[in-house]
Order: sequence, then C-alpha cells, then structure tokens
Amino acid sequence: MTSSTPIADLWPTPPPGADARPEAAYRLLEAAVESFAERGYHATTTRDIATAAGMSPAALYIHYPSKAALLAEISRAGHAATLALVRAAADSGDDPVARMRRLVEDFTVWHARGRTVGRVVNYELHALPPEDYTVVAGLRLDIERTVSGIIAAGVEAGVFEVAEVKTAARAVTSLGIDVSRWYTDRSSETPQELGRRYGELVLRMLGARP
Amino acid sequence: MTSSTPIADLWPTPPPGADARPEAAYRLLEAAVESFAERGYHATTTRDIATAAGMSPAALYIHYPSKAALLAEISRAGHAATLALVRAAADSGDDPVARMRRLVEDFTVWHARGRTVGRVVNYELHALPPEDYTVVAGLRLDIERTVSGIIAAGVEAGVFEVAEVKTAARAVTSLGIDVSRWYTDRSSETPQELGRRYGELVLRMLGARP
Repeated sequence: MTSSTPIADLWPTPPPGADARPEAAYRLLEAAVESFAERGYHATTTRDIATAAGMSPAALYIHYPSKAALLAEISRAGHAATLALVRAAADSGDDPVARMRRLVEDFTVWHARGRTVGRVVNYELHALPPEDYTVVAGLRLDIERTVSGIIAAGVEAGVFEVAEVKTAARAVTSLGIDVSRWYTDRSSETPQELGRRYGELVLRMLGARP
Repeated sequence: MTSSTPIADLWPTPPPGADARPEAAYRLLEAAVESFAERGYHATTTRDIATAAGMSPAALYIHYPSKAALLAEISRAGHAATLALVRAAADSGDDPVARMRRLVEDFTVWHARGRTVGRVVNYELHALPPEDYTVVAGLRLDIERTVSGIIAAGVEAGVFEVAEVKTAARAVTSLGIDVSRWYTDRSSETPQELGRRYGELVLRMLGARP
C-alpha cells in the first residue's frame, strides 16, 4: 500500500483485495468516510461520494456496485485493523499488565487519530447488508474475546482482580471506541498522551497493583 | 407531565416550556427521536416525523417551525436531564465515594434505558443550530465540571488518587455515554446491574480503596 492518505495510514493491514485496487478506489473510500461521518450513511448519495472524490457517478460504479459496498469495505477493514492491533497486544509477551497497557494505548491512539473512520465503523453498523454485518459482528466478537482473554489471564495470574470479566472487557473497549466521538483537533491531549493515561486508568479499573 | 411515554419517562425534568405543550408535541418529539436515531438527522424529513406521529406536515409546523427546532428541544432537554441527575448525585452528601457511585449508577441507567434519546443527543450535536449548540455546549461543560468537582473533592479528602482530574472525568462520562451505543434489549445485564458494576469499576479507576 503506497498511498499516504489517512485511509492508508489508519488501516495498517490492507483491506481485503487492496492489492488489486487502483488509487481511485482509495479516493472513493476516503470520500465515503468523510461523507458518512458528516451527514450519516442514509443522507449520503453515491453522487455525493463520487463528486467528493472528483469522479462521475458512473466512474464510481466501476469500483463499487453500491453505497452499501463502500460502507461494507470501510467497516470490514476498520474492524480488521482494530482486531489486528488488539491481537498484536495480546501476543506481545506473557505479562497481562504489559499486554493490557499496550492494548489500551494502541486502541486509544487508533480511535483518536482515526476518529472519522471510527465513527462510521461504530455508528453505521445497522446500515450494513446482512452478510457484511455477520462478518463484522464476528470481528467485534473476536475483539471482545481477545480483551477478555487478557483480563482472564491476569486474574489467573493474580495480577488483576475483576468481578465480571465480560463487563470489564466491555468497559475497556467502550472507553476506546468512544474516543472517536469526542476527540478533536482541539483536544488538550495528544493521542499518545491520552493512550498512556487511559492505560493507567484501565489498569487500576482491573485491580492491578501500582 | 402526565404522559407515560418513554420521552416523559426519560426526561425527569420537563423540557423548557413543556407545561404549555399539548400531547401532540410529545408525540412529535418521540417520532423525531425514533427517526433521527434510525436514519440520522440529515436523512429524516419533517414529513417522516409527522407521518410517524400520525399527523400531517402542516400540523407539525403548528408545534415546531423546523426539523432543527425538534432536534434542539430533544438535545436541550436530554442534556438538561442528565445534568440534573449528575447534580443530584453531586449534592447527595459529603462522601465523594458515595456521590460518585450514585452518579455512575444513575448516569449508566439513564443511557441504557434512554439509549435511543442518548444516541440522538450525543451523535447529532453538529446538526444543532449555532444558538442551540451554544446552550448545549454549556450544559455539557456543566456536566464535566460537576464530575470533575466530585473527583477533586475525593482527591482533597484523600479517598481518590487521580493524576489528571480532567482526563478521569472524561473517562467517567465517556463510559456512561457509550452505553447508549452498545446497550440493547438483548444485553445480559439489566440497566441497574450494569450501573452497579460500572460504579465499582469507576471507583477503582479513581483509586478508591475497596
């Protein structure tokens, strides 16, 4: 992936089939993300997206059969990218505290930097075609299970103290996801600072000793 | 307020001017909340709202001059209601731990039960007319400051240990607000159970001793 667009920056793993996609497809994805985030999926037309990408509606259809196909690719790739960073954190050693700290930091930074994609990915789930929704729901479940796995390992090792692992895992992902709602260019903390602070807050929430 | 609609249930304080409003205005508010939450503000027309309320577009205009006026009333009343419960918790005694526990419980329950209103109130801020946005931004600031005030009081009293009060306050409100995104009728916890569990998690996050 040679593009330096925010889309490419935010998705460290190329979306499915990305190797075969020309640059125009990325421009359409970017335009779709911006339009969906600004006006919502239902109020956006394929013409809006094509125009924002500097293309004709007919040219859009060369790359994507529908507005829903664009949303589906954005949602699948966005979820795949967050699952990848969550898994990388989970696989980064034996210490549950260090793994959770890395997970929260990376997850927070992703949602602060990628807040526009993050909003689309998390708020337009209901608009996905059923087969794409099923795939995305599977990715979301994998994210929750990976987070739960680190918490359970920490409880097992005696470094976390958690009454309900599932509720705690939900709180961890929820805190990160909601960053994409409130974080702006005018926020007083950099994504990295916020990630570090959230890492500390989450570790305390999980009962880790300082 | 004699109506037993969800709108009336969710807004313990009547929206501004509610005393003077007939039942039809509440039906319009409810229909607007449902439509905005389902399709987004921009994709909803005044005709959609009137139809859902069983009225003609002309009848809608007797009560509200525009779609934006409906959003503004929903957003102002929703924020006023959450500010009221946050203030009630803050004023509920001298113990910062008990005040914070009540705040998180009530704030969580509100966003779980009132998830449809909660989504509209928190995700459609950008669509508010400027003068309404200013009012709502003021209410949001009051909420953040009230939460920060309890945390600061707890730090002062030596019962909380928090590095950055503002970041911690943001995390507390963020956790509650995001409940309106993910909570559904099929969630395994009741709003009250979730509130109690989140209360425990937040107190630990703030460094309260068990």
